[in-house]
Amino acid sequence: MSKVAQRYLDVDPWVVRERGFHAGRSRISESVFSVGNEFMGVRGCFEEGYGGQTTLGSYFNGLFEEEPVDNFFKGLVRRTHFIINAVDWLHTRIALDGETLNLARCRFHGFVRALDLRTGVLCREFVWTTRRGRKLKLSFERFTSMRDGHLGCQRIVFMPLNFSGAVRVEMGLNAATVCELHGRRNFFSDVKTGAAAGGGLALLARIERSGQRVMAVMRTEAAPAVAPRTFASEKFIGRRFDVRLQRGQASRVDRIVTCSVEKDAGVPSARVWRSGLALAKARAGTGWEQARAAHAGYWQDVWNKLDVRIEGDPENQQGIRFSIFQLHQTYHGADPGNNVAAKGLTSESYWGVTWWDTETYCLPFYLFNNPDAARNLLLYRYSKLPQACERARQKDCEGARYPMCTIDGTEACATWQHGDLEIHVSAAVAYGVWHYVNVTGDKGFLHREGIEMLLQISRYYASRGQWAQRTGDFGFWFVMGPDEFHMGVSNNCYTNVMAKKTFEWTLQTVREMRRAAPALLKTAADRVGLRPGELADWRRKASAMRIRRDRRTGVYEQHDGYFDAPHLECSRIPATDFPLYHHWAYFRLFRWDMIKQPDVLLLHLFFSHDYDLKNKRANYAYYEPRCSHESSLSPGVHSILAVELGLHAKAYAYWRHAARLDLDDYNRNTHEGLHTTSMAAAWLNVVYGFGGMRSDGKMLSFAPSLPARWRSFAFRVLYRGSVLKVNVDRRAVALTAASGPPVRVEVFGRPRTVTAAGIRVPMPAGRVARAG
Amino acid sequence: MSKVAQRYLDVDPWVVRERGFHAGRSRISESVFSVGNEFMGVRGCFEEGYGGQTTLGSYFNGLFEEEPVDNFFKGLVRRTHFIINAVDWLHTRIALDGETLNLARCRFHGFVRALDLRTGVLCREFVWTTRRGRKLKLSFERFTSMRDGHLGCQRIVFMPLNFSGAVRVEMGLNAATVCELHGRRNFFSDVKTGAAAGGGLALLARIERSGQRVMAVMRTEAAPAVAPRTFASEKFIGRRFDVRLQRGQASRVDRIVTCSVEKDAGVPSARVWRSGLALAKARAGTGWEQARAAHAGYWQDVWNKLDVRIEGDPENQQGIRFSIFQLHQTYHGADPGNNVAAKGLTSESYWGVTWWDTETYCLPFYLFNNPDAARNLLLYRYSKLPQACERARQKDCEGARYPMCTIDGTEACATWQHGDLEIHVSAAVAYGVWHYVNVTGDKGFLHREGIEMLLQISRYYASRGQWAQRTGDFGFWFVMGPDEFHMGVSNNCYTNVMAKKTFEWTLQTVREMRRAAPALLKTAADRVGLRPGELADWRRKASAMRIRRDRRTGVYEQHDGYFDAPHLECSRIPATDFPLYHHWAYFRLFRWDMIKQPDVLLLHLFFSHDYDLKNKRANYAYYEPRCSHESSLSPGVHSILAVELGLHAKAYAYWRHAARLDLDDYNRNTHEGLHTTSMAAAWLNVVYGFGGMRSDGKMLSFAPSLPARWRSFAFRVLYRGSVLKVNVDRRAVALTAASGPPVRVEVFGRPRTVTAAGIRVPMPAGRVARAG
Repeated sequence: MSKVAQRYLDVDPWVVRERGFHAGRSRISESVFSVGNEFMGVRGCFEEGYGGQTTLGSYFNGLFEEEPVDNFFKGLVRRTHFIINAVDWLHTRIALDGETLNLARCRFHGFVRALDLRTGVLCREFVWTTRRGRKLKLSFERFTSMRDGHLGCQRIVFMPLNFSGAVRVEMGLNAATVCELHGRRNFFSDVKTGAAAGGGLALLARIERSGQRVMAVMRTEAAPAVAPRTFASEKFIGRRFDVRLQRGQASRVDRIVTCSVEKDAGVPSARVWRSGLALAKARAGTGWEQARAAHAGYWQDVWNKLDVRIEGDPENQQGIRFSIFQLHQTYHGADPGNNVAAKGLTSESYWGVTWWDTETYCLPFYLFNNPDAARNLLLYRYSKLPQACERARQKDCEGARYPMCTIDGTEACATWQHGDLEIHVSAAVAYGVWHYVNVTGDKGFLHREGIEMLLQISRYYASRGQWAQRTGDFGFWFVMGPDEFHMGVSNNCYTNVMAKKTFEWTLQTVREMRRAAPALLKTAADRVGLRPGELADWRRKASAMRIRRDRRTGVYEQHDGYFDAPHLECSRIPATDFPLYHHWAYFRLFRWDMIKQPDVLLLHLFFSHDYDLKNKRANYAYYEPRCSHESSLSPGVHSILAVELGLHAKAYAYWRHAARLDLDDYNRNTHEGLHTTSMAAAWLNVVYGFGGMRSDGKMLSFAPSLPARWRSFAFRVLYRGSVLKVNVDRRAVALTAASGPPVRVEVFGRPRTVTAAGIRVPMPAGRVARAG
Repeated sequence: MSKVAQRYLDVDPWVVRERGFHAGRSRISESVFSVGNEFMGVRGCFEEGYGGQTTLGSYFNGLFEEEPVDNFFKGLVRRTHFIINAVDWLHTRIALDGETLNLARCRFHGFVRALDLRTGVLCREFVWTTRRGRKLKLSFERFTSMRDGHLGCQRIVFMPLNFSGAVRVEMGLNAATVCELHGRRNFFSDVKTGAAAGGGLALLARIERSGQRVMAVMRTEAAPAVAPRTFASEKFIGRRFDVRLQRGQASRVDRIVTCSVEKDAGVPSARVWRSGLALAKARAGTGWEQARAAHAGYWQDVWNKLDVRIEGDPENQQGIRFSIFQLHQTYHGADPGNNVAAKGLTSESYWGVTWWDTETYCLPFYLFNNPDAARNLLLYRYSKLPQACERARQKDCEGARYPMCTIDGTEACATWQHGDLEIHVSAAVAYGVWHYVNVTGDKGFLHREGIEMLLQISRYYASRGQWAQRTGDFGFWFVMGPDEFHMGVSNNCYTNVMAKKTFEWTLQTVREMRRAAPALLKTAADRVGLRPGELADWRRKASAMRIRRDRRTGVYEQHDGYFDAPHLECSRIPATDFPLYHHWAYFRLFRWDMIKQPDVLLLHLFFSHDYDLKNKRANYAYYEPRCSHESSLSPGVHSILAVELGLHAKAYAYWRHAARLDLDDYNRNTHEGLHTTSMAAAWLNVVYGFGGMRSDGKMLSFAPSLPARWRSFAFRVLYRGSVLKVNVDRRAVALTAASGPPVRVEVFGRPRTVTAAGIRVPMPAGRVARAG
């Protein structure tokens, strides 16, 4: 790991703060200071306009444009889709003395920008000195309400320090925005603007090819607004007015915007317009302060429920809180039609699409913080089952083949070597189903939606897999595993294990349902058209699955022939060669034993109980030095496993990358958006890593370790109706059922009952890392 | 092989003839009736215009347009290039009674179209009955001179059967042509037209991005031409005139066109215009008859030198002559800047680019028919050595990496999985060098150009290859062999053998030159910057090369893990599934033991002396049923090997496909152009197959067989200054040195000296196939 921290933000346990404007890092800050509420998100851009480096970004969950893809070969995608930079509902212009405020050109001092994680409000202030010498202090606040997803709120406070006079303010709704990733194109057509009730303005825009609509209705409250005038230009409507300022007195302008989307291209625009106006009208009575209080209250609840506290490591304390904050901003299960994009709602990069990160990294976070949100993530996949079945058919297969990445359930990945070879993504969905049910015990979901997904995914693997002609093994030829540095391999170990597990989960669920829910089983079997012999076929295939292991060392072979692949000393790759995708010829990446990210090792995390410590040690020792960590998800997984193996120094080194990946711009690409799903890995890093939690057994288990720098750390998990508090210090791990019934868990391998009174288990030798 | 003949053309030993117009097959006929002369080629379209299915095509060797390619990954091509439909120099319109001749709409009878292989002239005639009842017999002739590549000649003869009057004729040069394969786009810009000396017309057109130019100058000779008028439209110039017709008397219009190209975008257009006019002027004295006589004389020479005669098989007699004819039309070594495209000069399909077919299939044809042409094919590769070295660097390698396909020497293949994984194409060039020198003994070429290519290609393989970490083998990971149904495999046997051979040929040549040509060796070593230790490195890598063979059976494993790959019964694939690329999902092709075309078996053909008959039999028995023959080059190779193994029925079945692939439209895609390089395979099928010739030993060897249907067959090969005639009948094989010194060859394994008097060797038992 030759990546280094690029720090310029204050270290503070609760606030992300930039003191003095760092123009050279403006786009990094825009990502870091993003606010969102699952329904929508905006980058931390300067709403008044900025003439320097900037990527304006206003995103809506699930809103996309689509494009045809020119592909010759049968079964390759013919259409892709991607998130777009939508309506800028914060558009503002401020002028004084005929000079327009623009921090790239104007004189200013005292710049502070701060995102308060406790309240979820982004603030910015500075003093602007005009060419004529007038000094105006400006304070901006913004938030997107976590209580009412449609609500975006902006406040500007003007404090004239050495004059009285008028400041000219313009506030508008702008659909003439461009997408940086797509050649600075604008994707809106049929933009309608007009007046809304109570002096508001409204804008409705249609995305050209997808036909989806976005609507925004704004109203402003400016104390002494003078001469307001509505004006419009192409794909834009706004209001211009003056605010009279009295020297030494603060004047305020508030804007409350109600945003809505219509994802169904078939709904007439007139109806969308009407319901957008109605939505705004319903919120006509909501004032800024009221909205802010509700929003801050939401965050207070969040932190009360699931704060992670680290004593003795302020940097990473901040990092983990920032991660939790961003995850909640991105998704908290408000709508089962939403999902988590790799970069959340902070960028157009990675196309705003959902990957298998959702089931592998994000789902566990929600499972233990917000089980309803976890359920909604799975219901999202259930709702996309028809698309997954259609995709399987396009590939001459049966069952459900979930896409590599998607917004609407169809395959968005036009890079076929990923989109089509990474067949393991369907198993990740099955894993999500199993993991959710194992943790929550939600058999209702399993017997209704879950079983249908399991049946269709099993059917997919049964049809995609093949029999080896000499050994008679069952397996998967021409695939790509999670390690994307080996393309078109045969029998990727992770894929084979996951498919085998999928068969087993399915068969086990069927057995269970035969007894416990025969009617629901019949319903599911009828819905998927289960054929006689299919279950037996899957049983045979599961038991014949090729999973190769070196008998002497216990190391699993990542894929056929991997052990004999040419060796590369990853540690000797010069730091300047990273990212490898940019510096190495494409074809050079795929012919070594170097891997991009954990592959076999994921199994030791997901199915911890299946492997003994000796096996984990052997596999970690073999694969860790072969890993280039080209994926931002890699360090967290390595850290978790290193903790388990007592490799404290390694564990902590990887953890730092995971916890402050974006705050310190480790990957030098935070300007392209936050690594939102990696933030879930950061949370896993605390809870599964240092907390030593495992959730693949019959009960939760804990085996914490304490890094040398930490005095203590604490976290909470929601588990079967209880809030389980875990506190770890050098002497002991303390567990308390803060609310709910007593909980049976394993601690350091022994079953314990945790009650409201709590239990304390002494830290065993070697579990507390020594400094140095 | 579930492909069937679609016959509609006459079977005739010397003429390809269509009786009655087959409108439903018009585009097939256009391909079959193509004429060309290496410099240029035109499809057999109706020059007077045709309102039915047609693909107008006028091509110039090496003339291309280029286009940017949008590729994210480093080292993937950023630009591609392709042949275009260029200036239509045959553009003609004919009107009578105000009715324009168009065989899609007019009444006509007596249609005959014939390509005479003896003279290389395409003729067409029919009687047109106008709506007013006038009957006009028209005869068209055209050829592109094999003696003077710039010359294209057209003749139209009008014979009014029941009237006297005037026919209106328009003849023009048209650069407003479109490319069917590229969305019917026209690629010309800056078209200049004007008058040429002697009443001629001239047109110069520039290809938009490549900047290449094509120029055509025409003159017409029409006996009683009345009221000629020059007219122009966009990218077009022409002349309109009347021809007075007397009932029962033939009137003639001749057109002679001089075409030239300028491939260097840097040459000013004014200079191209001047030299185009000068070229035309130099041919001002050449009349139609004179040009035709020279052209026909060329063909007479060809047939005298290298006719293949088959007694008892008229269909395939025609097929093989048609193949030889088309090969010569496409290429005969007139210019080392030219090469052979997969579809010759008969189509835009396959982009007019040159593949490794040139060295593997075409080179042997020219080696034994026209050694200078063979040498020119290698000089073409030598001239593209800088581009091959640049391409290697782009791929983080050293040495020379020849492109998958190309016109100008850069990689034209934008499908990276082929363009970048098929690293065997460089070895095909090395094989060409070695094969050429082995047959011709041309050490001058070897010690000057050949050695430099060998050094750079060896260097490429040394840098591209890797060491297996367990076994210590040297080999190539993440490649694709000739069998394109296995992508990203490791240690493709063919590739590894070819690279090993390349190392060995290089080392052997260096050894030989140390003794025989030390100064030239120093020159070559200096030019390529040979480093100390490189030769030793190549020796080590050659000797450690992984070439896996089943010890029990002797079957070579096509690539790592192939023997255990899932098995597919190719013979059970329904005929309607072909071509598989169209009917199977892309990802489904790559995960079986099914192969697209011979891979390991190529080695048994190229290096026949390295393998004993038992080994050949075992490998053929293993691989032949696994081959889908999705490549048109596949049947010929299988036929050749089947002959050697005494599998007469198989050999003949495959041969029929090879010999009449286009005449009978076996692959149902002849309308997209002729399979020109497969025609070379058809020739190999006679000479290497039934003739049993092998050219990889110290001397030529022959071991003929006679198919059951054949009474006898005969062919000639040029070999070391002699013309060796081979005649095979049921009793004996007769060899004669028709000209030149006596030749030492092996016949049925025994060395013989062939003199002008000839020798006769009795056919051994089993060499004459029995009917049934």
